[in-house]
Amino acid sequence: MTDNRPALGVGMVGYAFMGRVHSQAWRNVGAFFDLPVRPVMAVLSGRSPDRTAAAAASLGWAAVETDWKRLIERDDVSIVDVCTPGDSHAEIAIAALAAGKHVVCEKPLANSVAEAEAMAAAAREAAARGVRSMVAFNYRRVPAVALARRLVADGRLGEIRHVRAQYLQDWIVDPDFPLVWRLQKDKAGSGALGDIGAHAVDTAQFIIGSLLTGVSAITETFIKERPLAEVSSGLAAGSNTDAKGEVTVDDAALFIGRFEGGALGSFEATRFATGRKNALRIEVNGSLGSLSFDFEAMNELWFHDATEPDAGFRRILVTEPDHPYAGAWWPPGHGLGYDHTFVHEVKDFLEAVAEGADPTPSFDDGLRVQQVLAAVEASAAADSRWTAVV
Amino acid sequence: MTDNRPALGVGMVGYAFMGRVHSQAWRNVGAFFDLPVRPVMAVLSGRSPDRTAAAAASLGWAAVETDWKRLIERDDVSIVDVCTPGDSHAEIAIAALAAGKHVVCEKPLANSVAEAEAMAAAAREAAARGVRSMVAFNYRRVPAVALARRLVADGRLGEIRHVRAQYLQDWIVDPDFPLVWRLQKDKAGSGALGDIGAHAVDTAQFIIGSLLTGVSAITETFIKERPLAEVSSGLAAGSNTDAKGEVTVDDAALFIGRFEGGALGSFEATRFATGRKNALRIEVNGSLGSLSFDFEAMNELWFHDATEPDAGFRRILVTEPDHPYAGAWWPPGHGLGYDHTFVHEVKDFLEAVAEGADPTPSFDDGLRVQQVLAAVEASAAADSRWTAVV
Amino acid sequence: MTDNRPALGVGMVGYAFMGRVHSQAWRNVGAFFDLPVRPVMAVLSGRSPDRTAAAAASLGWAAVETDWKRLIERDDVSIVDVCTPGDSHAEIAIAALAAGKHVVCEKPLANSVAEAEAMAAAAREAAARGVRSMVAFNYRRVPAVALARRLVADGRLGEIRHVRAQYLQDWIVDPDFPLVWRLQKDKAGSGALGDIGAHAVDTAQFIIGSLLTGVSAITETFIKERPLAEVSSGLAAGSNTDAKGEVTVDDAALFIGRFEGGALGSFEATRFATGRKNALRIEVNGSLGSLSFDFEAMNELWFHDATEPDAGFRRILVTEPDHPYAGAWWPPGHGLGYDHTFVHEVKDFLEAVAEGADPTPSFDDGLRVQQVLAAVEASAAADSRWTAVV
Amino acid sequence: MTDNRPALGVGMVGYAFMGRVHSQAWRNVGAFFDLPVRPVMAVLSGRSPDRTAAAAASLGWAAVETDWKRLIERDDVSIVDVCTPGDSHAEIAIAALAAGKHVVCEKPLANSVAEAEAMAAAAREAAARGVRSMVAFNYRRVPAVALARRLVADGRLGEIRHVRAQYLQDWIVDPDFPLVWRLQKDKAGSGALGDIGAHAVDTAQFIIGSLLTGVSAITETFIKERPLAEVSSGLAAGSNTDAKGEVTVDDAALFIGRFEGGALGSFEATRFATGRKNALRIEVNGSLGSLSFDFEAMNELWFHDATEPDAGFRRILVTEPDHPYAGAWWPPGHGLGYDHTFVHEVKDFLEAVAEGADPTPSFDDGLRVQQVLAAVEASAAADSRWTAVV
Repeated sequence: MTDNRPALGVGMVGYAFMGRVHSQAWRNVGAFFDLPVRPVMAVLSGRSPDRTAAAAASLGWAAVETDWKRLIERDDVSIVDVCTPGDSHAEIAIAALAAGKHVVCEKPLANSVAEAEAMAAAAREAAARGVRSMVAFNYRRVPAVALARRLVADGRLGEIRHVRAQYLQDWIVDPDFPLVWRLQKDKAGSGALGDIGAHAVDTAQFIIGSLLTGVSAITETFIKERPLAEVSSGLAAGSNTDAKGEVTVDDAALFIGRFEGGALGSFEATRFATGRKNALRIEVNGSLGSLSFDFEAMNELWFHDATEPDAGFRRILVTEPDHPYAGAWWPPGHGLGYDHTFVHEVKDFLEAVAEGADPTPSFDDGLRVQQVLAAVEASAAADSRWTAVV
Repeated sequence: MTDNRPALGVGMVGYAFMGRVHSQAWRNVGAFFDLPVRPVMAVLSGRSPDRTAAAAASLGWAAVETDWKRLIERDDVSIVDVCTPGDSHAEIAIAALAAGKHVVCEKPLANSVAEAEAMAAAAREAAARGVRSMVAFNYRRVPAVALARRLVADGRLGEIRHVRAQYLQDWIVDPDFPLVWRLQKDKAGSGALGDIGAHAVDTAQFIIGSLLTGVSAITETFIKERPLAEVSSGLAAGSNTDAKGEVTVDDAALFIGRFEGGALGSFEATRFATGRKNALRIEVNGSLGSLSFDFEAMNELWFHDATEPDAGFRRILVTEPDHPYAGAWWPPGHGLGYDHTFVHEVKDFLEAVAEGADPTPSFDDGLRVQQVLAAVEASAAADSRWTAVV
Repeated sequence: MTDNRPALGVGMVGYAFMGRVHSQAWRNVGAFFDLPVRPVMAVLSGRSPDRTAAAAASLGWAAVETDWKRLIERDDVSIVDVCTPGDSHAEIAIAALAAGKHVVCEKPLANSVAEAEAMAAAAREAAARGVRSMVAFNYRRVPAVALARRLVADGRLGEIRHVRAQYLQDWIVDPDFPLVWRLQKDKAGSGALGDIGAHAVDTAQFIIGSLLTGVSAITETFIKERPLAEVSSGLAAGSNTDAKGEVTVDDAALFIGRFEGGALGSFEATRFATGRKNALRIEVNGSLGSLSFDFEAMNELWFHDATEPDAGFRRILVTEPDHPYAGAWWPPGHGLGYDHTFVHEVKDFLEAVAEGADPTPSFDDGLRVQQVLAAVEASAAADSRWTAVV
Repeated sequence: MTDNRPALGVGMVGYAFMGRVHSQAWRNVGAFFDLPVRPVMAVLSGRSPDRTAAAAASLGWAAVETDWKRLIERDDVSIVDVCTPGDSHAEIAIAALAAGKHVVCEKPLANSVAEAEAMAAAAREAAARGVRSMVAFNYRRVPAVALARRLVADGRLGEIRHVRAQYLQDWIVDPDFPLVWRLQKDKAGSGALGDIGAHAVDTAQFIIGSLLTGVSAITETFIKERPLAEVSSGLAAGSNTDAKGEVTVDDAALFIGRFEGGALGSFEATRFATGRKNALRIEVNGSLGSLSFDFEAMNELWFHDATEPDAGFRRILVTEPDHPYAGAWWPPGHGLGYDHTFVHEVKDFLEAVAEGADPTPSFDDGLRVQQVLAAVEASAAADSRWTAVV
C-alpha cells in the first residue's frame, strides 16, 4: 500500500484555542476526505519551549520552533497556519507568503484596514506566483451554512430583502471577569465587533452572495474597567489582582446596513447576551422563501419555501449524503460539532492548493470584512451617520 | 339574582378587523372576570347603514349609528371605543373626551406627533374631570408579556443591557397585492413602522420599564407601485384594476437605539419577512438573566436565570393560575388566543374606570411611541443620523 | 335588518369547567361563522339554585332550571348540551333523545361499555327520527388536528406505519392533592385513561382514519390514598380534611396496539408527567411523510414530506385562510386558544342539524372509544395479554 | 519532552462504520484528555488485505492483520476493540480476554442471551486476572445523557414515575432498499430491536439507575421481502439484483414495561419513522422534575424543575466546563458531534484500565440489555403476555 500523493508539510504558529482546533483539523482531515495531497503535521511554533513542546506532543506535531521566522524558513513546511492574536497576523502572513508558503490565517484578517490591505496585496502578488492564501472564516464550512448558500444561489429564496445577523455570547457579563487580551485594543483591534461581528458579517455576505455597501452603527463598552489578571490568555485567566485596567474595546456593536442588490441588514455582536453562549444567528428573507440558522444548533437549517402549500419553516437536519461536507462523515442524523468545520476548511484549502486554484475566503474577502468593521467604528464615532464601506 | 353593578354603555366606532376583535372582548369579558361594573354593548357606528346593521347583529351590538358624532351624543354611551384607521383617531377621541366619555383608542394613537400631542393634552384635561382614556396596545395584555414585565420589575434580569424587538409579517410580499389603505400615507400615517413597529416599541418599553432616548434608522419601500383595487380595506381587497398607484409608506423600518438607563435596542418592522406571519419577537438580556418572546407562540415565555446551576432558557407555559390574567380562563396548559388579549384590555380598562384611576397605556404613552416613530422617520431622512426622541 | 334564520334553543346541563367552555362556544359562534340557524342560549340547569343563577348570569344563559328533567321538557329547548360528569351522561342523553332533542354530550361518552352501547342505540334510533347527536371530542376541531386529518386523507403520508399518542398532565403529582371526583371510579369511570386517554384514542383514530383492533396494556395507581376534601369538584378542592380515602382509578395507563390497515400504535395517558400541563401529543409516520402535534402549541402542526429534497419537519402555523376553521377568525399568525375548538364544535353541530345530517363524532364513535378503554382495562387485568377491541 | 506514560497498544477488528468512528476516538483522545496511559494505534484487522491496508492508512493504524486471531496474539496489542457484526462478538471477545487483552466490544453484546452469558462469564473471570472489558454503549457518553444521569442521581427529579424511550430512524422505508446484513437474523440477531432498541434500553436504565423487570411487546416486519444486493454492508449496498430475499428481523419493536422501583416505561425502536434520522429520544418524569433528550439535538438537555416558580422545561446547552466531558473541548456553546461520544468512551476505558478498575458498562450490563431484548421477543411471540426479564 503505497501512498503516491505529494506530501505537504504544515507549520502552525500558536497553539491556544485556535491552534488546538486547527490541529484537530490537520490530524483528521485525511481519514474522512479523499485528498489529492497528504498533509503532514510538521512543525508547531510558540514562544515558550516547554509549553510548545507539550502542546506539540499532545496535538500531534512532529517538531517545534520557538520563533515563527524559523518555522517559515523550514524546507519541510509548505503551508503556514497562523493562529496567533490579530496583532501579529500581518507580519507573519506577509513573511510566509514572501517565502513562498501557502497561508491559512485566522480571522479577523488583521487589526486594521491598513494591515489588511497590505496582506491582501501580498496575497494577490503571491497568487501570481502560485502561492495560495485563505482567511479562516470557518463558519462558511458549517454544512448548514453551506446549504444555506446553495439554496440562495439556486434561487430558492428569490430576491433577498432582509438579513438579520447576530453573534451573541455572554462570557464577560461578570464585571469581575479580568482584562484578558481580547479586551485590549492594541492586541485585539476591537472587541465583540472584530472577534465575533466579523463572523456575522462574513457569514451573512457569504450566504446571500452580496456585500454590505454602507452602515449606521452604535457601539458600547458596558464595563469600563476590569481587574488585571496574573496570567491571562484570550478567553480565561488565572487569579485576578487588585489592580484594574481600562477596557479599550467595545462590549457590543449594533448596526444596520444595506447590501448590493437592495437587501437590508441588521447586525449585532455582543458578549453581554446572558444565556447565549455562541449564538451566531442568521435569518434571510427573500421574495420566495426564508432561512434561519443558529450555531447553537449547528446541524439544523430552517428553510421556508413560500411556493408550497401548507408552508412553514422546516428544520432540515443537515446530515444527509447530498448535503455539503456531511456525506464524508456519519449516517444521517448523526450530527457534527464545532471542530468539524475546521476539518472542512483545511480540506477545501488543500484541494485548492493541489488544483492550483485560489481558495476562498481570500485575503481580499478578509479585507472586505475589515472595511465593514472600520465603517462600523467610523459611523459609531460620528453620531451613527451613514458610512459607506470602502 | 339581581345584578347591582353599575352598567356602562359602550359605543364602538368601526367594525373591521379591530372592531371585530374589540366586540369579542366586550362580549366575553364578563364571563371570565368579576368586574365592578357591567359593560353593555350599546351602539355600533359605521358609514354604511346596511353593513353596520349586519355587523351589529353578528357582533352583538344593540343599536347602530351611521355618524360617530351621534354615537358620542347618546346618553346610553359612557365609553367610546375608537376602531377606525389612524387618520380619524384624533378627531373622534378628542370629541368623545370633550363630551365626557371614557375613550379606548386603537393604536397608533394618531398619524402624526401633532395629532398625538393634541390627543394627549385632551386626555390630561379630561382626566382632571374624571374622564379616562387608554390607547389599545393589546400586546401588553398577552400573559407572557405581562409576566415578562413582572420578571424584569422583580429584578430577575438585573441590569438591562440589550433589547431586540422585531415585528415581522409577510402579507405584501407579492407585488400584485393591491394598494390598500394601510399602504397610503394619508390614511395610515406610515407603513410597517406605525402599524407594527409601534407595537414593538411599546411592548419593549413596557417590558423593560424604560424609554428610548434616541435612534438611528433606515426605511425602505421595496415595491414602489401597486395595483389599485376595486374596493379595498386595510388588509385585503376585491379584484385589482389595471391601474397602479404609488406606495407612499415604508415596507420596512430598521433602527438601533438607546434606552434610559443604558440598554441598547435593535428594532425592525417589516411586511416582507416571508414565512413570518405575525412574529412580534422580543428578546431582553440583563446582567442576571434573559427573556425571549414570539407572539407566534404567544402562550410561551422563554426565561433564562443565569444565577442557577445548569441554567438554560426555560419555556414557561404562561397558563398557570398565578400568571397574569391566565387564572381567569382554563386549567394549566390550555392556551389562549389573540382575541383573549383584548378581553384583558377591556377588563383592565373597566376596572380603572370603576376605581377612578387612569388606565395604562395612557394617551401620553401613545404620544411617546409616536415620538419614537417620528424620530425614526427623521433619522432615516437625514442619513441615519442619531436623532433624539422628543 | 331582519334575521330570518330559524332559532334553536340550547339547554345546557352543568356549568363547571366544561359548562363554562361550552357557554363560550354558544355565545360566540354566531359572530364568526355564517350559520344557517340561530342558536339561543335558553336554559342552564344545575342543582343549586343560587349558584346556577349566578353562573347563568355570568355565562349568558337566559333562564335556569334546577332539574335537568325540567330542562329537557321545555319547548324553548331544541338542543341539550350535557356537561356533567360521566356517571350521568347515559341517563340524561337518552332521555333528551327520547324527548326529541338534539344532543351534544361531553366525553367520554359514558363510564362503561354497557352505558355507551345503550346511548349509541338510542342515538341510532333517534337519528331515524331526525334527531341528532354528537360526542364532544373537541380536539378534532383544533385546526392543526383537522389539517393533520386532511393531509392523511389526501395521501400525503402514504401508508401509515406508526402512531405515537400521549396525553400527559401533572396536576395530581402532589400526594396531598385531594380525592376529587375524577379520582373516584363510581363517578369518573376510570382515571387518566377515560379522562384524557379517551382523547388520545379518538384523536389518533380520527387523524389516520382507522380503528384500533387490539391492545396490550398496563395501568398504575402511584398514590393509593389521598386526603378527603371539604368540598370538591373534578379538578380542584377546598381545604383538605385529615381523613384519607382510596384512589379507585388509574393514575396512568400505557398501551401498545394495532390499527386496521397494519399501523402500530403506542399510547400513554398520565397525570404524573411533571411539567407537561396539557400535552396531547400525536405523531404519525407514513411511508411518504410524517406529522407531529402537541396541544401545548396548538396552533402548530409539524409536517415532514419525504418526497421533497432537503426535507425536514416543517412547522405549519395553522392560521391561514385555507386551513380548517382558521379563516373565520383573524389574519395569519394570530393564534387561537383552547376555547375556540368548542366554537368549531358547535358550529359543525349546528350545520349538521340544519342540513339534517348526522354530525361527527357520533355516539357510535364514542362507543368505539369506550370499547378501546375497556380492552385496555381488560388487558391490564390479564397480565397485559393481547385483547381485541370489541 | 519525554512521555513517561505507559503505552497501550490497541488492535481493532473491523473498519466499517463502527471501525471508522472508533479510530477517530483512538486518534484524538490524547489531544483533549490528560490520560494516565498512552494509547497506540497498533494494528487493524480485516479479511481483505488491500482494503484493510487502505483503511489502516486512512484511519491511522500502524499495521494490519487479515486474521483477528493473529491480532490477538500480537505482543504490541494490549487492548482489543471489537467492531464486527454481532455474530462474531462472542468468539473474538472471549478469545481476546483469554489471551489477557482488555476488550472493548461494540453493542449489542451478542446475538443471543446464551452468547452474552458466555461473554459475561468470561469477563468476570478475566476481571479476576486484572483484564478489563466494556460494552460500547456510546450514548452514555453524550454529555447531555451523562448530565441527565447526574441530575437523577442527585435527586433533582425525585421519585421516577415514567420513562419514554424511542429510537427512531427511517433508512429502510423504501421497499427497494436491499437486504443488507442488518436485516438478516443470522448476522444481526434482530432488527431495530437489537440495533437501536438496545441503545434505548441501556440509555434509559443508565439515566434512571434502575433495571427493567418485565415487558409486554409487539414486533413487526412491514416489508417481508427485499432485493438482494451485489455487494452489501450493514447500512448500504451496491446495485440491487432482481432476486429477492426474506427479511428475517423486525422492522419495529414496541414494548411497555416496569422498572425496579415502580417506574413505568414505554419503548419503541423502528426504522420506519419517516423523517426521524437518528432520534434516540428519552423522557423521564419524576415527582420533582422531568428530563427530555433527543440525540438529533445532542448538545441539549431539557430539564424541568417543578420546585421553582415560573417553571418550564429549560434547554441546557451541555457545553459548560462543569458539564460531563464538555470542559475538555471548546468554549461554551461550541457543540460536539456524534464521534466525540466515542472519544469519551475510550477515555473512560483507558482511565479504568490504568486505575485497575472495571469500566462501565460491563459485559454484565450488556447481558442485562440482551435479556431485555429476549424478553421482548418472547412476549411478542406469546400474545404480548407479560414477560419477566431474566
